[in-house]
Amino acid sequence: MKQFLESEIISTYEEAKIVILPIPYEITTTYRKGCEYGPDAVLTASDQLECYDEELGMETCFHAPIFTHDYIADTRINKNLTADDMLKVTTETVTKLIKDNKFVIAVGGEHAITTGVVQAYQQTLDEPFTVIQIDAHGDMRHEFEGSIHNHACVMRRILELDLPTLPVGIRAICQEEADLIKEKNIPVMWARNIYFNPHWMAEAISNIKTKKVFITIDLDGIDPSLMPGVGTPEPGGMDWYQLLAFMNLIFSSFDVIGCDVMELAPTKDSVVSEFTAAKLIYKLIGYWQQNNSKVRSIE
Amino acid sequence: MKQFLESEIISTYEEAKIVILPIPYEITTTYRKGCEYGPDAVLTASDQLECYDEELGMETCFHAPIFTHDYIADTRINKNLTADDMLKVTTETVTKLIKDNKFVIAVGGEHAITTGVVQAYQQTLDEPFTVIQIDAHGDMRHEFEGSIHNHACVMRRILELDLPTLPVGIRAICQEEADLIKEKNIPVMWARNIYFNPHWMAEAISNIKTKKVFITIDLDGIDPSLMPGVGTPEPGGMDWYQLLAFMNLIFSSFDVIGCDVMELAPTKDSVVSEFTAAKLIYKLIGYWQQNNSKVRSIE
Amino acid sequence: MKQFLESEIISTYEEAKIVILPIPYEITTTYRKGCEYGPDAVLTASDQLECYDEELGMETCFHAPIFTHDYIADTRINKNLTADDMLKVTTETVTKLIKDNKFVIAVGGEHAITTGVVQAYQQTLDEPFTVIQIDAHGDMRHEFEGSIHNHACVMRRILELDLPTLPVGIRAICQEEADLIKEKNIPVMWARNIYFNPHWMAEAISNIKTKKVFITIDLDGIDPSLMPGVGTPEPGGMDWYQLLAFMNLIFSSFDVIGCDVMELAPTKDSVVSEFTAAKLIYKLIGYWQQNNSKVRSIE
Amino acid sequence: MKQFLESEIISTYEEAKIVILPIPYEITTTYRKGCEYGPDAVLTASDQLECYDEELGMETCFHAPIFTHDYIADTRINKNLTADDMLKVTTETVTKLIKDNKFVIAVGGEHAITTGVVQAYQQTLDEPFTVIQIDAHGDMRHEFEGSIHNHACVMRRILELDLPTLPVGIRAICQEEADLIKEKNIPVMWARNIYFNPHWMAEAISNIKTKKVFITIDLDGIDPSLMPGVGTPEPGGMDWYQLLAFMNLIFSSFDVIGCDVMELAPTKDSVVSEFTAAKLIYKLIGYWQQNNSKVRSIE
Amino acid sequence: MKQFLESEIISTYEEAKIVILPIPYEITTTYRKGCEYGPDAVLTASDQLECYDEELGMETCFHAPIFTHDYIADTRINKNLTADDMLKVTTETVTKLIKDNKFVIAVGGEHAITTGVVQAYQQTLDEPFTVIQIDAHGDMRHEFEGSIHNHACVMRRILELDLPTLPVGIRAICQEEADLIKEKNIPVMWARNIYFNPHWMAEAISNIKTKKVFITIDLDGIDPSLMPGVGTPEPGGMDWYQLLAFMNLIFSSFDVIGCDVMELAPTKDSVVSEFTAAKLIYKLIGYWQQNNSKVRSIE
Amino acid sequence: MKQFLESEIISTYEEAKIVILPIPYEITTTYRKGCEYGPDAVLTASDQLECYDEELGMETCFHAPIFTHDYIADTRINKNLTADDMLKVTTETVTKLIKDNKFVIAVGGEHAITTGVVQAYQQTLDEPFTVIQIDAHGDMRHEFEGSIHNHACVMRRILELDLPTLPVGIRAICQEEADLIKEKNIPVMWARNIYFNPHWMAEAISNIKTKKVFITIDLDGIDPSLMPGVGTPEPGGMDWYQLLAFMNLIFSSFDVIGCDVMELAPTKDSVVSEFTAAKLIYKLIGYWQQNNSKVRSIE
Ligand SMILES: [Mn+2]
Ligand SMILES: [Mn+2]
Ligand SMILES: [Mn+2]
Ligand SMILES: [Mn+2]
Ligand SMILES: [Mn+2]
Ligand SMILES: [Mn+2]
Ligand SMILES: [Mn+2]
Ligand SMILES: [Mn+2]
Ligand SMILES: [Mn+2]
Ligand SMILES: [Mn+2]
Ligand SMILES: [Mn+2]
Ligand SMILES: [Mn+2]
Repeated sequence: MKQFLESEIISTYEEAKIVILPIPYEITTTYRKGCEYGPDAVLTASDQLECYDEELGMETCFHAPIFTHDYIADTRINKNLTADDMLKVTTETVTKLIKDNKFVIAVGGEHAITTGVVQAYQQTLDEPFTVIQIDAHGDMRHEFEGSIHNHACVMRRILELDLPTLPVGIRAICQEEADLIKEKNIPVMWARNIYFNPHWMAEAISNIKTKKVFITIDLDGIDPSLMPGVGTPEPGGMDWYQLLAFMNLIFSSFDVIGCDVMELAPTKDSVVSEFTAAKLIYKLIGYWQQNNSKVRSIE
Repeated sequence: MKQFLESEIISTYEEAKIVILPIPYEITTTYRKGCEYGPDAVLTASDQLECYDEELGMETCFHAPIFTHDYIADTRINKNLTADDMLKVTTETVTKLIKDNKFVIAVGGEHAITTGVVQAYQQTLDEPFTVIQIDAHGDMRHEFEGSIHNHACVMRRILELDLPTLPVGIRAICQEEADLIKEKNIPVMWARNIYFNPHWMAEAISNIKTKKVFITIDLDGIDPSLMPGVGTPEPGGMDWYQLLAFMNLIFSSFDVIGCDVMELAPTKDSVVSEFTAAKLIYKLIGYWQQNNSKVRSIE
Repeated sequence: MKQFLESEIISTYEEAKIVILPIPYEITTTYRKGCEYGPDAVLTASDQLECYDEELGMETCFHAPIFTHDYIADTRINKNLTADDMLKVTTETVTKLIKDNKFVIAVGGEHAITTGVVQAYQQTLDEPFTVIQIDAHGDMRHEFEGSIHNHACVMRRILELDLPTLPVGIRAICQEEADLIKEKNIPVMWARNIYFNPHWMAEAISNIKTKKVFITIDLDGIDPSLMPGVGTPEPGGMDWYQLLAFMNLIFSSFDVIGCDVMELAPTKDSVVSEFTAAKLIYKLIGYWQQNNSKVRSIE
Repeated sequence: MKQFLESEIISTYEEAKIVILPIPYEITTTYRKGCEYGPDAVLTASDQLECYDEELGMETCFHAPIFTHDYIADTRINKNLTADDMLKVTTETVTKLIKDNKFVIAVGGEHAITTGVVQAYQQTLDEPFTVIQIDAHGDMRHEFEGSIHNHACVMRRILELDLPTLPVGIRAICQEEADLIKEKNIPVMWARNIYFNPHWMAEAISNIKTKKVFITIDLDGIDPSLMPGVGTPEPGGMDWYQLLAFMNLIFSSFDVIGCDVMELAPTKDSVVSEFTAAKLIYKLIGYWQQNNSKVRSIE
Repeated sequence: MKQFLESEIISTYEEAKIVILPIPYEITTTYRKGCEYGPDAVLTASDQLECYDEELGMETCFHAPIFTHDYIADTRINKNLTADDMLKVTTETVTKLIKDNKFVIAVGGEHAITTGVVQAYQQTLDEPFTVIQIDAHGDMRHEFEGSIHNHACVMRRILELDLPTLPVGIRAICQEEADLIKEKNIPVMWARNIYFNPHWMAEAISNIKTKKVFITIDLDGIDPSLMPGVGTPEPGGMDWYQLLAFMNLIFSSFDVIGCDVMELAPTKDSVVSEFTAAKLIYKLIGYWQQNNSKVRSIE
Repeated sequence: MKQFLESEIISTYEEAKIVILPIPYEITTTYRKGCEYGPDAVLTASDQLECYDEELGMETCFHAPIFTHDYIADTRINKNLTADDMLKVTTETVTKLIKDNKFVIAVGGEHAITTGVVQAYQQTLDEPFTVIQIDAHGDMRHEFEGSIHNHACVMRRILELDLPTLPVGIRAICQEEADLIKEKNIPVMWARNIYFNPHWMAEAISNIKTKKVFITIDLDGIDPSLMPGVGTPEPGGMDWYQLLAFMNLIFSSFDVIGCDVMELAPTKDSVVSEFTAAKLIYKLIGYWQQNNSKVRSIE
């Protein structure tokens, strides 16, 4: 099976601090299909990464050993898989990884998967946490096209878990979502504001009221000029350094309990989308490691 | 037939304030062909739009009902169509729509179409108007490759109508066009200036001397990183928010009499170009509606 | 054979000041192949260029006549070509062109070719020069995948020639390269710094200590949103105007002895990468001509 | 009597295109007094100006000869002068100057003077014009401290003349003014917006609906770090280049019929305020001349 | 006795939500003396404030009634007052005001006073709070010129109370302070960083780990071009909108328990320093009120 | 006699690397007099400096011991001193200091002094050097008010020595100077360009063609909001961090052979000008030391 960063170094499950969990699940996409092929493309692309991180000045993978889990909820081979099946196996798998003290990065697949990942954290931890959502879309519809587990509904499910959320990079919502945002006073960081206001990151983190955070990244939060390989691209998204700077700030200011990176649907004649996704995942590991080691040296 | 924003809502011709006029005409393109498939791709992509506009805070389509006209000047089915045929039917069709009090957004197809659209306005209105051109290219050659109705000549035809023009985003001209710009003192907003000078929009509108304006958007005015699906892409174009901010300013400062959006030539494995074109059209409708309702509340 | 800027004007070798040297050589690429088709795509795309340069206000090609050399080291037709063969013919060809007083722009092909080009200048000139490298990658490994002439090693070969280098736009290096940079105090202009620090160009040129410079452009130095057609794209690269502004500054501040533009691997359904490469080459010729004529008018 | 730009060159009234009209009038100031000494300080400081303008590349005063009028409404010598006296002599004097075809720059003195200046233009011209007000304060109270001709009321008087206004740089208003702005939909360019929004100038001029404009500059519109010598300084004002860029744009986009520069109250141990005021006046003359000569060369 | 905002409106102690506490104490200043005259100058200048706040859109003083306390620790009339006397009366007075449920803004006087103010909050509240310090100087020396209550030592005293601090705008420290910052890992927001890095505010608030904060403003944190009237001016300070934006963010993100504004030493021929100080205090009241009313409307 | 940084540390002439040379000479000033009191004010203010530099992270004065020379060319006590006297003693004194291997910072006094300082370097060194001039004014008149040694002529004298110059921050010149700049192609960095173009520093240093440079700072190059204490203030000057960033770049890119800091004319009720001048001098010493130690560690 493919491994993250394969040719560089592979660690055993036991020695790993980080676990990449590929979830090639796709049922509800309607526009541009193909996100069930996302995890595979990320793993393939990861082989081209340098294991040295030029921003952090370290070979991240030697400080934070990485293990790649088997595929779960794979709709490429199991065409009859339901959303409930996917949520069940996702929650079970992530729960075990949390208990084994691994830092998990789930890689989709549809954004709907995130409900299963977040449930695992909520059931395992006894402390509240904020779900930071990088996305072009609100994903806060009650249901869409007949399903409450459509990818357009995932953050509504999270809100039902009574977890605070921070949507970042949003530039497409419906009236129902606009009403909900107003009613619940959800602190949306609009993509427009990120473009025009250099102080947006200060606003963003001033809206996080918990010590722990979970980060869910729908890759369409990134501008489609860099990330065309998604199901529902929207112009006006975040650029590479805006996203990295925000991630770095979050990791150094809060206790990040887990992440996911969703919705990659590879394009045929370009590797830019999947390589960028792979590099983003490796940067998240780097920021985690940098902060993790800092914490230790203080104690 | 496909409709703009189909699954959301379709209005009848009578109740419509806005008419989308698809003109799949292509004869003279030389580099990357395919703009006769542009209108169809825009209509398909428009089905993915949210009808709520997060910037304007309204469901635009319920305030400004939209009707989609039948295709005219369709070279996909009529291979013998001439430029003169296209201009004739375009001018006739737009003239009728103006008289029926519709706000028209023509969707091309070759930029050459704009001559026909603009003629309709000039013949119908008794007031001068400025033609604001978003484009990478000057399009001010007298003729190109044997035709005076090549897309590289459309703004020269407009100038011959004695209408003032404001070219915006330009980054490719020939010597003939450079001489004409100098001779006629045409106020070009170079793409380079848009990138480096944050005050460019002030310069731009200080050069508009009429109350009424027509906006013609050649999609290659946008940077090809976001808009690869055009016939003659040029690096260094406008980004999404620069274009939107400028459009918003124009609609709120002038009386916009009509628009067109031209030159989409879809790519095979990405929906970014056509979705961006569809969203741009919907933003134009939103800015029109916002201004239109403002005017009413003043009167 | 295809010529640069074909339909506009072609000059004879004798009258030419500029020689485009296409080198369709590809052996060592590992990720996204196809750079042996780069030179051909550049030549084809160049036919779409305006010969007028709107920034410089001149028809560059009439002041700086351009001749297109025959292909050399063509692995499309000679599958058994070795790196040594390529280096030999490249150095010989460039040496002749230098002696004939031509300004050479080599077009690749793999970045490994640059070693051959630079050797020609070093052997011909008796003055040291700095090699300015635009690239996403350090290319300073001793060897990679069994070859010291892999494209990932080209700048290590240059350093072995005892020439000072200035790497610009770098965002991917390995530990070996990080150590070398520190040990040799190589003045790297990181892509991150280019994005965040508007004073980066001042820092860059303050690190050039010679009057003469050679410029090697690996096209992956440009952001992959604009330049997806390369072998190993990396997010976070230079944008179009940053690169042009830097090139303009270099040509006006130093004596540029030659250039190359490498690593174009065309994509199937977009012409953006090759057209951008062709336009970049034409801009380099324009900056050269502008500076060249200035020098003359002083003398 | 002191003359503007004395040691450089003085022209006769007949040959002058520009007339500086000093109005050392002060009755209603309450905080920091001394603006009746403003005109004298400006004239003294003007002697230190270079007559060459480095931005415009000309010796302005030789193209636009300047004549300095006698003081009028001088409260330094006539302690019993009333507001009505001042308005009467101001309107009469300015009217004569307009009829003699002079471009007038009145120099105060209290901002209340502007009413008299503007009345002269309204009575003489048969076309409407917009009054562009550079100021920290709204100056739109109906009356203040018992007088309707207090400097805090001057723009209310202008509004009563049914002239459109454009207040720029405002950062202090009372509730009455806030209500009036809302009721009359006055397009205020807040100082805060000028600081944060690089597109503010586009917004500003999109709100000017007449061809002709009059510019009244209360020097407290400039930030008090540069302009401490005013009666009621307010932090957060315009900087030097913001003001110049806006003035340049106004002169090149509209027909400026006249200007005034008000409220200088010199400080004891610094010449910065008065020299800056003198240089600003000279820049206004330069922008006028540049535009004036342009118009001529077109006709 | 003088009152804050005198001519506008004065409220009784009972109805007041806000209490201005003037502390004209000065013993240890060494460079530019006069801060014992600061509180008086602020009260005088406050009379020139508009009671309407144009940013917040309200007449702040009617929503947050303001009472001005008698002077305490007045070294202008009691030349023998010691630092201990000052600290005692300050702590006692502030403690009573906290218990009476007033929001206190102490106005100095020397920065040394802050120790007394902060002690009152620590003794009254049973929750930790962060002390946000706006200042040019570290003020973290153990002692200076023979006193541990010198203004150069005030933040060292705060640190000894085991309260976390956030120094903002710092641009002058000694070796002892540099060592302490390193040892205690104090998150200093250097003035240089504020100038160059638009993301500084995000960094700043990511370093606040408590819900409650106290804000102490040494006016020399502001750039001396705007605030020359301080004892030890330092070039390179914060500008007006940077400070206001930061204050607004702090009040909307944290529970601000109290403030002080220190070190005004009026200049003779300019009112800019004291007026700016008065306006800053009124803005703090506005931000408090805005946040205070928001909290209530949620509950 | 007063010493630079007196209370911190004083070194002997022998151990000193740096010599501060105060030259309280003033004859030709015409507008705001008092620069003969500049050196004294700088020395007094220097006593308030921290000896730790927070940017460089060192106590500069312990690494670069500073000696303060006796006053020379003191017009406060010698009213009959001529320009020739001043130039003679200045050149002699500086020559001796150069020969004793001291890094000299001359402190004026009139800008005319710089001729004497620069002559000493030219006569002592056998290599050409560029004179970098920070100034609001061109200072390139042949003569002014009857003297060729007026401060308005100093850079004309430098040009006559056949030394290349780089004027920076210029915003006031006369026609004669404009003609000279054009004729001699002097690379002026206009203040306007510094404000609008973030790439100005790259342009600046691309115009320095020698390895060695001398820096002459007329303090009116700094904006008068921060530096009101000069003889001829001009709005629109450099801010503190622009100047420091440029100085840092120059010291790290070139071999700085000496500096002077001229034209301080203290104000009565503010210490901002002289303290800023003193801090600037200390920063120059810091940049020198940082670079000096770097060089050594390389060798
Ligand atoms: Mn999404
Ligand atoms: Mn999503
Ligand atoms: Mn075009
Ligand atoms: Mn076009
Ligand atoms: Mn590369
Ligand atoms: Mn390379
Ligand atoms: Mn005012
Ligand atoms: Mn006013
Ligand atoms: Mn302080
Ligand atoms: Mn302090
Ligand atoms: Mn000067
Ligand atoms: Mn000077």
